Amino acid sequence: MKRIESPKNARVKHWKKLLTKKGREETGCFLLEGFHLVEEAVKSQAPLVELIVDERTTIPPGWDVSDVPVVIVTETVMKAISSTETPQGIAAICRQRPHELTGVKTALLIDAVQDPGNLGTMIRTADAAGIDAVILGEGCADLYNPKVIRATQGSLFHLPIVKGDVAEWITRLKEQGVPVYGTALENAVDYRAIPQSSSFALLVGNEGSGVRRELLKMTTENVYIPIYGQAESLNVAVAAGILLYSLQTAQ
Amino acid sequence: MKRIESPKNARVKHWKKLLTKKGREETGCFLLEGFHLVEEAVKSQAPLVELIVDERTTIPPGWDVSDVPVVIVTETVMKAISSTETPQGIAAICRQRPHELTGVKTALLIDAVQDPGNLGTMIRTADAAGIDAVILGEGCADLYNPKVIRATQGSLFHLPIVKGDVAEWITRLKEQGVPVYGTALENAVDYRAIPQSSSFALLVGNEGSGVRRELLKMTTENVYIPIYGQAESLNVAVAAGILLYSLQTAQ
Repeated sequence: MKRIESPKNARVKHWKKLLTKKGREETGCFLLEGFHLVEEAVKSQAPLVELIVDERTTIPPGWDVSDVPVVIVTETVMKAISSTETPQGIAAICRQRPHELTGVKTALLIDAVQDPGNLGTMIRTADAAGIDAVILGEGCADLYNPKVIRATQGSLFHLPIVKGDVAEWITRLKEQGVPVYGTALENAVDYRAIPQSSSFALLVGNEGSGVRRELLKMTTENVYIPIYGQAESLNVAVAAGILLYSLQTAQ
Repeated sequence: MKRIESPKNARVKHWKKLLTKKGREETGCFLLEGFHLVEEAVKSQAPLVELIVDERTTIPPGWDVSDVPVVIVTETVMKAISSTETPQGIAAICRQRPHELTGVKTALLIDAVQDPGNLGTMIRTADAAGIDAVILGEGCADLYNPKVIRATQGSLFHLPIVKGDVAEWITRLKEQGVPVYGTALENAVDYRAIPQSSSFALLVGNEGSGVRRELLKMTTENVYIPIYGQAESLNVAVAAGILLYSLQTAQ
């Protein structure tokens, strides 16, 4: 078992690169931090490259990680690679896994959602609502940004998430008989008018400007959530939650 | 009109105190940043103490602020008092306004929600859903924390928000004939079993540990949102959105 004491070690420098989008793209890997996220990765048989463990921390006995290399590090090293102020003592390097999507019945299409918390929360909500896949369009926060990963609470390991062209996906889903509902504030129907179904796609858009107009023109129907008070709109992740739970068939 | 150039000016030091909870409590004031929030305060006739304007910025002509003192400041001063990296050039000092709640028909009770983004987002959602009042129990993030204010998107000016004892409020609301629904993962009914109503209170709890057990024992009924996928739970603000929109009568 390797042991690394210095944050200047070449391996540590390599890990730190994963805190940047560029570093993640170059290596095809990302960094996971904390017991809950690493455990979700282990349980989901995600392609772990190595476990990084603080010398004062023990790997929980129930984890099936006998085939994953373990590197022991000092607290200083752990802090150097962490995006949080008080790291939990465990981290992992994981390979990004491409997904081939076939036979998708339900999907969440996300267009240009920039806030990492919103993006991660929507992935978590799609998982909870039993959605088959999430499509991330251009302009979205990076899926492997530590804040996105944290907000998913591990759901990124539970359902396929692919980067793609939202316009192409709208066309493709409609061709497969899956109705696509865009979210809009006007020229739309009350979301409660849409019947529950086991087959639908929901399209949500940027926090400030909403779904792009050219995409709203391509959907099967556009829906709005009525505002009863004085708020101008709902947070995009809250809106996605209300709509996914309204559209999804009770199982 | 006053003009302040130095971040060392005593007035600037006074404003900076409002970035801390202690400073806000001592002064009974809070700081608002950016055009949207200040405009919401102006439109809602919030008790503004002064407007702070970057020397290169113009107060929008439509704002009715003739009775609010204006202080012109340099970019350096604006940066010194801002909690964001790129301040928008306008800020305001506002007095905290206590609310007396009478005749509340619908309420959101929040117990120990610590994340400022979650707290602010729930206030925004309660406003959108036309809820009468929000009660913040012990252990919640400070309502006047800049991150909370930002996440409310101005909704803190649209409905009364009071700090209070959640247990007392549950009793009081039930005595007034308002059913109180707690949120729980077990020993609860599917939320869709609760009929829509123009009179209800929803109780949500801490991100990690949920609503405290002693409070769940006091409610009229506890509800859960079914999880169809592998997520363990929903984000508290998303859950609140789903439940408020499910419980609220369509208006």
